[in-house]
Amino acid sequence: MALVVQKFGGTSLADADRIRRVAHRVVETYRAGNDVVVVVSAMGKSTDALISLATEIAEVPHPREMDMLLTAGERISMALVAMAIRAEDVPAVSFTGSQAGILTTADHGRAEILDIRAFRVRESLDEGKVAIVAGFQGVSPDSKDVTTLGRGGSDATAVALAASLEADLCEIYTDVDGVFTADPRVVPTAVKLDEVTFEEMLELANSGAGVLMPRSVEFGIRYNIPIHVRSSFHGGEGTWVKEETMEEPVIRGIAHDDSEAKLTVYGVPDQPGIAAAVFEPMASAGINVDMIVQNVSSRGVTDISFTVPAASALEAVAVAERIADEIGAVGVDLDTDITKISVVGAGMKAESGVAATMFRILSESGVNIEMISTSTIRISCIVRGDDTQAAVEALHASLIGEK
Amino acid sequence: MALVVQKFGGTSLADADRIRRVAHRVVETYRAGNDVVVVVSAMGKSTDALISLATEIAEVPHPREMDMLLTAGERISMALVAMAIRAEDVPAVSFTGSQAGILTTADHGRAEILDIRAFRVRESLDEGKVAIVAGFQGVSPDSKDVTTLGRGGSDATAVALAASLEADLCEIYTDVDGVFTADPRVVPTAVKLDEVTFEEMLELANSGAGVLMPRSVEFGIRYNIPIHVRSSFHGGEGTWVKEETMEEPVIRGIAHDDSEAKLTVYGVPDQPGIAAAVFEPMASAGINVDMIVQNVSSRGVTDISFTVPAASALEAVAVAERIADEIGAVGVDLDTDITKISVVGAGMKAESGVAATMFRILSESGVNIEMISTSTIRISCIVRGDDTQAAVEALHASLIGEK
Repeated sequence: MALVVQKFGGTSLADADRIRRVAHRVVETYRAGNDVVVVVSAMGKSTDALISLATEIAEVPHPREMDMLLTAGERISMALVAMAIRAEDVPAVSFTGSQAGILTTADHGRAEILDIRAFRVRESLDEGKVAIVAGFQGVSPDSKDVTTLGRGGSDATAVALAASLEADLCEIYTDVDGVFTADPRVVPTAVKLDEVTFEEMLELANSGAGVLMPRSVEFGIRYNIPIHVRSSFHGGEGTWVKEETMEEPVIRGIAHDDSEAKLTVYGVPDQPGIAAAVFEPMASAGINVDMIVQNVSSRGVTDISFTVPAASALEAVAVAERIADEIGAVGVDLDTDITKISVVGAGMKAESGVAATMFRILSESGVNIEMISTSTIRISCIVRGDDTQAAVEALHASLIGEK
Repeated sequence: MALVVQKFGGTSLADADRIRRVAHRVVETYRAGNDVVVVVSAMGKSTDALISLATEIAEVPHPREMDMLLTAGERISMALVAMAIRAEDVPAVSFTGSQAGILTTADHGRAEILDIRAFRVRESLDEGKVAIVAGFQGVSPDSKDVTTLGRGGSDATAVALAASLEADLCEIYTDVDGVFTADPRVVPTAVKLDEVTFEEMLELANSGAGVLMPRSVEFGIRYNIPIHVRSSFHGGEGTWVKEETMEEPVIRGIAHDDSEAKLTVYGVPDQPGIAAAVFEPMASAGINVDMIVQNVSSRGVTDISFTVPAASALEAVAVAERIADEIGAVGVDLDTDITKISVVGAGMKAESGVAATMFRILSESGVNIEMISTSTIRISCIVRGDDTQAAVEALHASLIGEK
């Protein structure tokens, strides 16, 4: 009836029992008359185990060899899933990223998908088989080396493969019930969303909602592949991510992200080109700068604050200190105890005053705002890490919970 | 100076510490001016762990998927070895069987090497790198699927690769000091051999000496690659396996093998073609028959006894019972409690009476001989399992220990 891509994460594949349960769900979809492509992550915490083995052996493991190592993880899970499906008398065959024709750049550890030539997958579907594809991995046509896509790579594999195969939908099975109005660990009254638009999901994902990775949503947008985020533990409906939704609320959800750090270069001579002088070297060093705030100049000097992923913070400080020297700034300050809080909703486009409301709610909760950035459907504020709970709860209660 | 292939087994790679030690040994060989190709098995007992995971999921795991699963094992060890070598500032790059151009038949779990197109390995050597190759695995050019070579496959990979690269020698690092005159666990006075000929090694390997697998010796013979079997735990000399040795003793060593079982088809009508009627169906079923004895006929009926690997015993019984029905034999008997004891020595060619001496020694030790088979440089006897210790000790004392 349909061509369905089903992606299962590591938690859903943590042991033999769970693998059998995943296989059973795949078989149900297959027996209902669908063509099924399964994309798998590595089992449970096995990737972490491989990483710690590597760092035991080399302080900075070589990226090519790291990818070679880590791709063993999905190889194991895909073979076991294929065996488990065959044990239910359904033909199944597993493919590595390379065999599935997932062609990527040669950037080990964070390769980008260039093209998908899924001939063998297509052929196995035509033969009536379930195809199981290793997520997270591909091959560089230039170097002929195996690559990995980085965090959330298996989601990207699933949606990109769905696009390439012109699948009817892509199901992302996960250990939560779907996308929530806020992180339920912080806001117990947060509720599961029945649907969100692609652009809302992209903003939420970029703002710290961990359930889907931004790259997979981008593939969904580009090829208009509906994504169904749902629980691998029960059959209930999850959250549909798609081009348009029935309702378009002003605020769909609230995300928070404590994985950023704030750098401030202070005492910067305020002259044209100073921002470029700071941010070009950051870009050259491969450091992703998120929010930027430049203070009002006072007596010819100013401060520039910006956020970077906490994982890049020390590297960013080193670059910033070099720049500060060059441009005659006074110094560099690092603050890792911050959280970015974002409210997201496509309805915001048609509604003014949301930002003002957000700032008022935070203020009434005694939460100080350190930085602000906005898009057409998102407002983000940097607050102190300690204020996270109060801020998210207050925003949820006022903007979503009361509806 | 030379091109050396070094193979390390699972025990030598069991943890991060041992991997670092292996890397160090490789680096020493490299720094001495040699080109080095390293062939690795999976770490420690990891293959066993994967097999038990597979059998937890499917009673009879699909052979293609089993190979996909098991090849993850060498993938992990080869990447870690490459990292460890790089950590010593020596360039190293790892290759899967497929990347190393190990082309095999499509017989999953017991593929045969058809050809080796080691272009990438050669190229990396030319670039001054150490090449690490996954043992035990290859790819079928027909099915494009990953295959494994079966037990001892990594040794076969090493020697075949050495042949293909025209290496000067192949070192097989293992957890024992070399090839012994008998199994030291049975005969404490057994001594390490400095050298054995290829044909002696082949007979010993086929007779249960586990240190080298017959297939790897066959590659050594075919391409005249000297094989040095040595300890991975210290630098001492091991055993050289080569075309000719300085001395050619009548008896080089004693091997025993308790992994066979004996079947007897009794009450067989003694008429022409009866042996073919028994053994053709065995061959069709893929069962390896080793020794065969047909009793003297009495009143037109006879018994046929033969040995098969214990792992195939139940299947062999099923085939034999079908045959017994067809040819009007009385029945089939299975005996798993047997041991094959073999004495091997190239000097036997020029010396008569060795068989008589062996039978006398066994007889004087009260050991009954159930079956006998010989080659030009080997005499094998089947004895009761309980008699193994007495038989091997007596033979070693008389034929080797007194020298």
